[in-house]
Amino acid sequence: MSFSPASCPAHDPASLAAIDPSTCCPTTPVLPATRGVRDLTLAMRHAGIRRVQVAWEMQGCAGSPVVVVQGGISAHRHVASSEHFSEPGWWQAQVGPQRAIDTLRHRVLAIDWLGADGSLDACIDPADQADAIAALLDHLGIARLRAYVGASYGAMVGLHFAARHPARLGRLVAISGAHRSHPQVTALRVIQRRIVALGRSEGGVREALALARALAVIGYRSDREFEQRFAAAPQVEPAQARFVVEDYFDAIGPKFVARFCPTAYLRLSESIDLQDVDPSSISVATDLVAVREDQIVPEADLFTLAEGLRGRSRLHRIESLYGHDAFLKEESRIGAILTEALTRSDAA
Amino acid sequence: MSFSPASCPAHDPASLAAIDPSTCCPTTPVLPATRGVRDLTLAMRHAGIRRVQVAWEMQGCAGSPVVVVQGGISAHRHVASSEHFSEPGWWQAQVGPQRAIDTLRHRVLAIDWLGADGSLDACIDPADQADAIAALLDHLGIARLRAYVGASYGAMVGLHFAARHPARLGRLVAISGAHRSHPQVTALRVIQRRIVALGRSEGGVREALALARALAVIGYRSDREFEQRFAAAPQVEPAQARFVVEDYFDAIGPKFVARFCPTAYLRLSESIDLQDVDPSSISVATDLVAVREDQIVPEADLFTLAEGLRGRSRLHRIESLYGHDAFLKEESRIGAILTEALTRSDAA
Repeated sequence: MSFSPASCPAHDPASLAAIDPSTCCPTTPVLPATRGVRDLTLAMRHAGIRRVQVAWEMQGCAGSPVVVVQGGISAHRHVASSEHFSEPGWWQAQVGPQRAIDTLRHRVLAIDWLGADGSLDACIDPADQADAIAALLDHLGIARLRAYVGASYGAMVGLHFAARHPARLGRLVAISGAHRSHPQVTALRVIQRRIVALGRSEGGVREALALARALAVIGYRSDREFEQRFAAAPQVEPAQARFVVEDYFDAIGPKFVARFCPTAYLRLSESIDLQDVDPSSISVATDLVAVREDQIVPEADLFTLAEGLRGRSRLHRIESLYGHDAFLKEESRIGAILTEALTRSDAA
Repeated sequence: MSFSPASCPAHDPASLAAIDPSTCCPTTPVLPATRGVRDLTLAMRHAGIRRVQVAWEMQGCAGSPVVVVQGGISAHRHVASSEHFSEPGWWQAQVGPQRAIDTLRHRVLAIDWLGADGSLDACIDPADQADAIAALLDHLGIARLRAYVGASYGAMVGLHFAARHPARLGRLVAISGAHRSHPQVTALRVIQRRIVALGRSEGGVREALALARALAVIGYRSDREFEQRFAAAPQVEPAQARFVVEDYFDAIGPKFVARFCPTAYLRLSESIDLQDVDPSSISVATDLVAVREDQIVPEADLFTLAEGLRGRSRLHRIESLYGHDAFLKEESRIGAILTEALTRSDAA
């Protein structure tokens, strides 16, 4: 790993606005990035004391304020590409030099979710993820986060981080994740897990996992997007009808199966449904983002959350064809919200 | 079968309002009811010419105007109890002497859906069901229906009946069923069918069918009802979490499996997704009922349908905690709409 702190901007937030990246990082900014795996002993909420491993990645210059960035259950520690780890990350549009989460100004830290490697077959509470991040910060010598930016499951975990480790957090940005899971959406996830269990007991586990994933993604987009993409007439033969959406299912299922094991899927899906945070336990400054078309996190739940927070909070409501996936697809609107929120946290 | 036409009201619609049921049917009205199974040759839309059997039931007095009543894919020919067939029917609240669909004034005819016995393993278009009903009317010597009242899949079939056999229909009442299936809901049903297929190939077919049913019913009620019934905290042990809704799933699944075979489920579910009626092909007087909270038949689709109809139509919008199941649960409001619609059709 080549590490070039000399190419990095200064760490004093007040001076950051003056940095000219073309001077600081002449052509392609070469920012340091590093990865590690940390063994931790964690007092888990339901599963008791466990020895766990936390895989993490950080990019940005030593001494810069740290922003934790966490996405959905299928996201991971590789948020954005860097010189050292050049494959695209899952939030390439928002994280990088001069992007909304600017790695010239901040160090970006992310973990692979506890349970994502399938080795932890126990009930994982979102609170456990927050505690794992806090323990990792101890290990890395990071006393306090400038901000925590989470979307979907990452937002749920962020709410716990804010409630449980308020002294370590400057600002929370929680996108499309609430203090609870809606009971009807829990019902849908119960079905997803039972599909996997059915396949596991019967030997068709890959097919079952692909099917569970297909069911999950139905909720990730808005009904309008389905309208636009999948309203064409089916192909009907005497004994068989094939609907347009099946091509989509058949494309996404195998991709997911290739990178997710059934145990990881079962435990992280379950973890979403274990979400339970008392909004009044959160006093950290918070930005919430609610998407009107989100079918798995109803905006009404984010309104309830916003009303219950004790600290200063702002609720950003957006409309998006992409529903729950807006944080990945509405690049300019999400980027503007992130830029403003981080500017506030830098100024605080 | 005891048959007592003497206890029945006269058949002239104009005189019906004057009938005193206490005179006509002194204590318990004993109305005739009969059942049959008819072999038919049907030119099916996708499956070609097929020999099919249509099981039907009719109650009410010979010569009374006939109202066809059809419900969802799990409904059947036994709409309401009678002296002859005393077990409760699926629409007991609306059909019977002096109920909204008054068997003292009308004969009520219903069929078991083509495919419901699992013997027809081919693509069944809702139009095929409408044609089967028309062929059955020929067999029974019924030239024209006073009305066709359909809910859910029964409404979809009713739209086809109105489009394909307009000379045989006085009025259509279509509750919570549209001219098409919404692509996102089709996607959910594709998953349901794939669950059954997974179970069938793996040997866990009963469990798979129960699971598919559980997924289906999630859409049948509103999100508010889930909120009210299933928001309690889960039981969490170190290795296992159980959510409140699972008791519900475990109760309904086996009941459904006991009365539905996988082939019937696959073909009738598929049939819903084959729905495709041009609203402008319908010129019969029509009452449409849209439920704001219906999650599987969005009211927007019923608005589109209402706009496109060529004949006189009325759109009734209701709100209901029960969403798609409102036709079974909102007894007084649905009853009032039916009463008014049938009064109009009797007067026409």
